[in-house]
Amino acid sequence: MSHLSALRPLAFVAALTFSAPTASATALEEGMWLFNAPPADAIQAAYGVQLTPEWLEHVQKSCVRVSTGGSGSIVSAQGLVMTNHHVASDILDKLSTAERNLLDQGFWAPSMADEIPCPDVHLDVLWAIQDVTARVVGAGEGLDSAEAGAARRKAMTEIEDAAKQGTGMHTEVVTLYQGGRYHLYSYKRFEDIRLVFAPEKEIAFFGGDNDNFGYPRFCLDATFLRIYEDDAPYVPEHFLAWGADGAADGELTFVTGHPGSTQRLNTVAHLEYLRGTLVPDNMQGLMRSEVLTQIFMGESAENARVAENDLFSIQNSRKVYVGRMAGLLDPAIFAAKKAEEARLRQTVADNPEWAAQWGSAWDEIAGSRAALVSFRDELNAVGGPGLGVGGALPSYAVALVRMFDEMEKPSGERMRGFGDGSLPGLRQSLSAPIPTYENYEIAQLEWALSRMAEDLGAEHEIVVTALAGRSPRARAEQLILGTQLGDLEVRKRVLEGGKAALDALDDPLVAFVRSLDPYSRGFRQRLEDEVSAVEAGAYAKIAAARFAVLGDSVYPDATFTLRLSYGTIKGYEEGGATIPPFTDFAGVFAKARERQGEKSYLLPESWTGAEGRITGETPFNFVSTHDIIGGNSGSPVINAAGEVVGLIFDGNIQSLIGNYAYSDVQARSVSVDSRGILTSLEEVYGAGRLVEELR
Amino acid sequence: MSHLSALRPLAFVAALTFSAPTASATALEEGMWLFNAPPADAIQAAYGVQLTPEWLEHVQKSCVRVSTGGSGSIVSAQGLVMTNHHVASDILDKLSTAERNLLDQGFWAPSMADEIPCPDVHLDVLWAIQDVTARVVGAGEGLDSAEAGAARRKAMTEIEDAAKQGTGMHTEVVTLYQGGRYHLYSYKRFEDIRLVFAPEKEIAFFGGDNDNFGYPRFCLDATFLRIYEDDAPYVPEHFLAWGADGAADGELTFVTGHPGSTQRLNTVAHLEYLRGTLVPDNMQGLMRSEVLTQIFMGESAENARVAENDLFSIQNSRKVYVGRMAGLLDPAIFAAKKAEEARLRQTVADNPEWAAQWGSAWDEIAGSRAALVSFRDELNAVGGPGLGVGGALPSYAVALVRMFDEMEKPSGERMRGFGDGSLPGLRQSLSAPIPTYENYEIAQLEWALSRMAEDLGAEHEIVVTALAGRSPRARAEQLILGTQLGDLEVRKRVLEGGKAALDALDDPLVAFVRSLDPYSRGFRQRLEDEVSAVEAGAYAKIAAARFAVLGDSVYPDATFTLRLSYGTIKGYEEGGATIPPFTDFAGVFAKARERQGEKSYLLPESWTGAEGRITGETPFNFVSTHDIIGGNSGSPVINAAGEVVGLIFDGNIQSLIGNYAYSDVQARSVSVDSRGILTSLEEVYGAGRLVEELR
Repeated sequence: MSHLSALRPLAFVAALTFSAPTASATALEEGMWLFNAPPADAIQAAYGVQLTPEWLEHVQKSCVRVSTGGSGSIVSAQGLVMTNHHVASDILDKLSTAERNLLDQGFWAPSMADEIPCPDVHLDVLWAIQDVTARVVGAGEGLDSAEAGAARRKAMTEIEDAAKQGTGMHTEVVTLYQGGRYHLYSYKRFEDIRLVFAPEKEIAFFGGDNDNFGYPRFCLDATFLRIYEDDAPYVPEHFLAWGADGAADGELTFVTGHPGSTQRLNTVAHLEYLRGTLVPDNMQGLMRSEVLTQIFMGESAENARVAENDLFSIQNSRKVYVGRMAGLLDPAIFAAKKAEEARLRQTVADNPEWAAQWGSAWDEIAGSRAALVSFRDELNAVGGPGLGVGGALPSYAVALVRMFDEMEKPSGERMRGFGDGSLPGLRQSLSAPIPTYENYEIAQLEWALSRMAEDLGAEHEIVVTALAGRSPRARAEQLILGTQLGDLEVRKRVLEGGKAALDALDDPLVAFVRSLDPYSRGFRQRLEDEVSAVEAGAYAKIAAARFAVLGDSVYPDATFTLRLSYGTIKGYEEGGATIPPFTDFAGVFAKARERQGEKSYLLPESWTGAEGRITGETPFNFVSTHDIIGGNSGSPVINAAGEVVGLIFDGNIQSLIGNYAYSDVQARSVSVDSRGILTSLEEVYGAGRLVEELR
Repeated sequence: MSHLSALRPLAFVAALTFSAPTASATALEEGMWLFNAPPADAIQAAYGVQLTPEWLEHVQKSCVRVSTGGSGSIVSAQGLVMTNHHVASDILDKLSTAERNLLDQGFWAPSMADEIPCPDVHLDVLWAIQDVTARVVGAGEGLDSAEAGAARRKAMTEIEDAAKQGTGMHTEVVTLYQGGRYHLYSYKRFEDIRLVFAPEKEIAFFGGDNDNFGYPRFCLDATFLRIYEDDAPYVPEHFLAWGADGAADGELTFVTGHPGSTQRLNTVAHLEYLRGTLVPDNMQGLMRSEVLTQIFMGESAENARVAENDLFSIQNSRKVYVGRMAGLLDPAIFAAKKAEEARLRQTVADNPEWAAQWGSAWDEIAGSRAALVSFRDELNAVGGPGLGVGGALPSYAVALVRMFDEMEKPSGERMRGFGDGSLPGLRQSLSAPIPTYENYEIAQLEWALSRMAEDLGAEHEIVVTALAGRSPRARAEQLILGTQLGDLEVRKRVLEGGKAALDALDDPLVAFVRSLDPYSRGFRQRLEDEVSAVEAGAYAKIAAARFAVLGDSVYPDATFTLRLSYGTIKGYEEGGATIPPFTDFAGVFAKARERQGEKSYLLPESWTGAEGRITGETPFNFVSTHDIIGGNSGSPVINAAGEVVGLIFDGNIQSLIGNYAYSDVQARSVSVDSRGILTSLEEVYGAGRLVEELR
């Protein structure tokens, strides 16, 4: 299921990882390319297909980024959006109640009037890209690295604010090549999103956690949303036509979506930090969360419903980290990274001018990683730079405390994420009618507090501050049962009344957050000064060295921004057997029979009843060589004519090493075939209105 | 289920924990008393019941210790033994095949001829206790602490060997009061054990991991075995009569069994080590094992069967550690421990003679714990002193390598556990016809190798040695697919041929174990010299101080040897509600209906069909105030007349803190009622032969 979403349970961890500029000559079909620097010549040379500026603009403006951490595309003249069930699972979860579980049971709106508004979600369409490198880099010139970092952050927020004021668009300065380039991305943001169709989870996630990252697969991991403007379906300037004939084995196709992050070009010292510290810690932390969530879910059917979506998300991320750990512990992969770095460093060292300009960069990064290790446990204990301690209620308290504190400064001097441009989104999140569950909030806060004490020791100043003389359980109960922030009306009143209204609440959870905020801010500052700023400078040097040595036809590491990948539909060999690229509908029914009695392989009633109506040979899922990673979930697979032929939803287990290196030997992307989607809508769900709209 | 078995997945960890002599005045009903020092006067005073020497001998010789890590009792004149289903689960697992799953489906032998021999299990009956303190302590006198430790270990093995030669019994010198006393325990050992009756796992473990450590409960966690001698049922000198009327609310009863270990009287520094290092590490390690085992089990129904029993054992231990962690993070409990220690230290400091003799002990233990922390990660990475890396096949290799190496020395100078007295048991384990499963062995070894690399770093000498240039997965495949030790005939040949035969195998797994053994032995030696020996001396001082200050009517921490607890059948208050002491048969059927559709609450067909035949009010499970802990599983609950009125199988969640402190407020033991057992045998299973034998 959700493995290709950006890893939300680890959101703050992302701030601890950095990508680096691309290095060596890329393999054919490797690369997550920028839309303003597509590999058009390579594609023309290899396949005779010309990507025109018109084609690129059309595709770019047909793609959406989903605020739940995935990708999607506009697929009709009435603003219909296709994404994955697992990208929409947060939405389905929030729309569910004890009586109506949309995540499990699916949803179908027979008419537009039945489409359900989705709380707290927005879709962004990338409208323009502008290179602002000179201004951002210029802001830091002549300053020491911490000052330069602060100056660049300020310049980025100012650029975003000014552009937003000028265009009304949502704006973000994206750091590419980890400081080698800065691009301003301007998005059209849509906030009235409604649910049109979702299948049952049983078929969306057929095979469950067992089959996640596996192949062959049989999943209808698809959901349709619709963009509304002024209470009417949005009429887009661009949308992707439906490719009713799908794609053929070996055909060149494109994936356009938002890969979340990669660390392909990290230095060896940086990779050693990932291998020795970050990846094992995250993996263990996810396993811990998985067990604790399962315990909570075992207590009652209602608990199981409340935490189910979180469990899938955790299991998915855990699988990613287990795969990454395995890749990092493969001596062959590390040896190749070491050899490549040694060659580049030697080439730089051999040129006195290069050596003087760039030669120190690798040791600088080794130093910044060592610095990070010295305060990492404390930074993590307070939930990272985002102060992410516990569940939803603590996050409301953090948002309110920080928003009002930051609003006392000019926008450009605020903590990133609290500039004027970000405030509307924050306010939307805080005033969304999303249910919270007391016992789940208590459990999550207890786990966070216990973890804090385990990691830092029970007598560490931060732990003593956080627990205030109670056990983790007793403290969690005190704070969650005592807070008023679960009440939407209270949050709205505070949003209107500002800091004074927040103070007047005299809320224990707010007091708790305020007691930890100084620590979080302190470590955040150290992270920015001693790690991020140092590495922005050092990776910029390495980027320059790479460009000098290897030329500039390279792609940056993933940044959860729109990228273009190209590849072919293609099977692979595993354990001596050939795995063909396509699966079909006959396969899903056969698999359900083979694994009868196992919950993960149960088919919903809608499917068991439809077997007789479906041609067994109709393609259902397929694999291809596209270079994708978490965040690409929901990306369309399109042919050279720009038609949708598939919907990315997974990568196989061999693709997990893609975080560090691309391979086309066994690594594959996994998609739902466009024919599989249409057949399901027509024959299983009788969703005629939707089928006509797509055709 | 299995929470009261000694925690087998953590067996080696036990060597890292130490118990200390008992301290403060004990509460009424507190205590795990020695059979040669029973609290007869306290019981006489409080209840007017006199424990005679005859009663004590009769009960002692009616109890058995089960080699799978639990307790049991002889309950008929034909050697019938009662224990828990979860204590016998290892046996049931080993007797199961893909075709016949005894663990899940249960077993009933209609005649004695149908009783199935159990491989690799033995039962020990405690026959005699002798105080050998003078000889053991004397062996170390005048030596420095490491030398004294070695001399004491040697003396212990020599005492055991001599006693075994003299009596033919299995002998063990037990360290009590962590060095305050040494007692020689002599056991009659029985090795021909056969399976008579086991219920289906669904009713033995009704409520599954959810309800484990919970109450009210509805479990038939009982299994019957039989001791054979010379191929005939054993005719015991002592056995417990069946108490067909059970016990009443408030009645004084006794529990006689083998509590595994407690840390009630550790110093504060030692408890800080548990709170800050051992308990969180073990908890995390168990959660990791739980997730990895679940992943393995998800791959196929056969994998699920193979690893099912291990998963229960892991989940059970995880629950114990989560409970312990919560207890250790309760500031009130730690404050009480600190205050108590401060009082004792002050009393010692105020007396110049005491101060000179004992005053340094607390700092010595703080020092030895700090020493342990400095090499603990490496010790654990090589699987602790027992070199427990991976699954069953590596453990065969370790046993063979060490046995032949140690046999070159005199028995008294060998590593503990390899003296002449221990060799028959080792040989029995190595020649038992127990199936191993290649894919499970590969998975377990991969996890152990990966963990090693995560904890020590991929470039640590031990990791480089263990991986030999491969990834954890590739190395595990190479070793498991390459070894011949899975073949029983090969193991038997090696056992006969000795070291030369082992060398001639040229087995990669043996070579792997040999490459790690020097590290394991080195850290084991440091553990013995820098921790165990130092603490044996220091805790002996604290024991002397405690006896001087508090008198000598105290019990030692648990040591997996026979103890007597006394208490009453008694309900408790929780969340404002009163939980009555007894549950009944009507309750189990009601619960199954309430949680319909959940796998953990499914009743077996034998039960659903029997509802009409059973009187709903018949007692099924009950709680009592007895002081028990892991290892007590399978202990009989007996009345003052020495009759069986129940069968211990669990403690409630509030009892988990019992590792550190006894409480009778909410902490309770959980038992199957003798009436519940008999009614089940008669009305559900029609086990008339067994019912007659018990009556």
